[in-house]
Amino acid sequence: MKTNLKPLDIRGRLLGSNGRALVCTALVGRTTAALKAELAAILPKSPDLLEWRVDFFDAIAERREVLAAAAELRALAASIPIVFTRRAVHEGGEPIAIDEDAVVSLYASVCASGDVDLVDYELSQPEHHRRRVRAVSQAHGVALIVSCHDFRATPAASSMLETLLRAEREGADIAKLAVMPQSQGDVLRLLDTTLHASAALRIPLITISMGGLGAMTRICGWQYGSSVTFAVGQRVSAPGQIPIETLRGAMAALREAA
Amino acid sequence: MKTNLKPLDIRGRLLGSNGRALVCTALVGRTTAALKAELAAILPKSPDLLEWRVDFFDAIAERREVLAAAAELRALAASIPIVFTRRAVHEGGEPIAIDEDAVVSLYASVCASGDVDLVDYELSQPEHHRRRVRAVSQAHGVALIVSCHDFRATPAASSMLETLLRAEREGADIAKLAVMPQSQGDVLRLLDTTLHASAALRIPLITISMGGLGAMTRICGWQYGSSVTFAVGQRVSAPGQIPIETLRGAMAALREAA
Repeated sequence: MKTNLKPLDIRGRLLGSNGRALVCTALVGRTTAALKAELAAILPKSPDLLEWRVDFFDAIAERREVLAAAAELRALAASIPIVFTRRAVHEGGEPIAIDEDAVVSLYASVCASGDVDLVDYELSQPEHHRRRVRAVSQAHGVALIVSCHDFRATPAASSMLETLLRAEREGADIAKLAVMPQSQGDVLRLLDTTLHASAALRIPLITISMGGLGAMTRICGWQYGSSVTFAVGQRVSAPGQIPIETLRGAMAALREAA
Repeated sequence: MKTNLKPLDIRGRLLGSNGRALVCTALVGRTTAALKAELAAILPKSPDLLEWRVDFFDAIAERREVLAAAAELRALAASIPIVFTRRAVHEGGEPIAIDEDAVVSLYASVCASGDVDLVDYELSQPEHHRRRVRAVSQAHGVALIVSCHDFRATPAASSMLETLLRAEREGADIAKLAVMPQSQGDVLRLLDTTLHASAALRIPLITISMGGLGAMTRICGWQYGSSVTFAVGQRVSAPGQIPIETLRGAMAALREAA
């Protein structure tokens, strides 16, 4: 695979390394106790990355509680990198009790805490918010995933490539694109676009074709240039996810079939 | 998936049924004893189809031995359909001790025995041989797979589609195409061609992108219209095959991810 990707080293795990993908599981607990139980159940399955979906967290408006939970997750996760993500409702997330200013301010506090390694923020957010998230993450050495989700359809190849390029131009350390296929052809177009994007961008990519039709991209996306794949840990956090053990087995089978 | 496929019912197993593929394992023993041991080891893994690769059989020149072995396999396999295949050297098979006239005559005897359910014969064989194989299989109610293998490259989409259409025109009950990818784009082209072919042909298809890059087509090919996938039983019979348990797990994960 021809690629310009420069791997990111996050706690010793290479993100964007050719020919493999990190397996990430999401934490979607509503309370600190639920999150800790979820993490304890997932740890024996050795995920490479953890994503805390804070939009599921009931106390998202209580900054002290969020920071305390982040510290607890950090301690439990040991060396596994943690992604802090508030997924917006219009990109598939849960409704939350705080406005976007408060979200960005929360990102700043969490970055400053040193308890997370990456944050995910949407390309669809207003520019001044994105700039602030970029500035605070950079200031604290936290990698920024700039993401874009389309739960309805799979855009044209040129449009998907432009989305990824725009994420890079606007300062992403990692560009993420998740789209919904309406047909088998949509799935192939997402993979083909990933292949082109991995040659065109200098940062690691994460791409996903969601749902049942797209589920195979979670297994083979790394062969096309996607550097992270999301598996079911305790609970599905997006349609099409596969249980971590099955996903790992299938990915290993592809590697060994060479 | 839009498709014109009309499923074939072979011993109650539907071949070419939308949204699933039969899992086939190959038997490559050199002696009757080795074949029986191989089959006994594979049966607990419940393959949907068995392919006897008779080009591996040392006694291929001894018709009585071939027929006796076929009868033994038939008895052991119970209700699992058996494909009888002599793969030619120029399409990836083993060198054998008999000429093509004798091969075709062997196909006739095996079809007449009632001990196999399908035969596989290459589109690249001379027309008079193909006609005879078609006639004897038809006469005995044996389904004919007309196959084409390219171990070097993945042809253009139009060329692959034409190969499958030609197999149908020339009397195939099932058209099979296995090609070698040189790049990720080749794998996507094989899947895209399969999608188009499944709308253009009225018979079931089997398509495979071989090797490590193509291995994912063994898992997800059924989503694109391929009706059989070849797994490792005891021994790999073509590059890129995946162990049957792993393959089944990954295929089930795709179905359940919907």
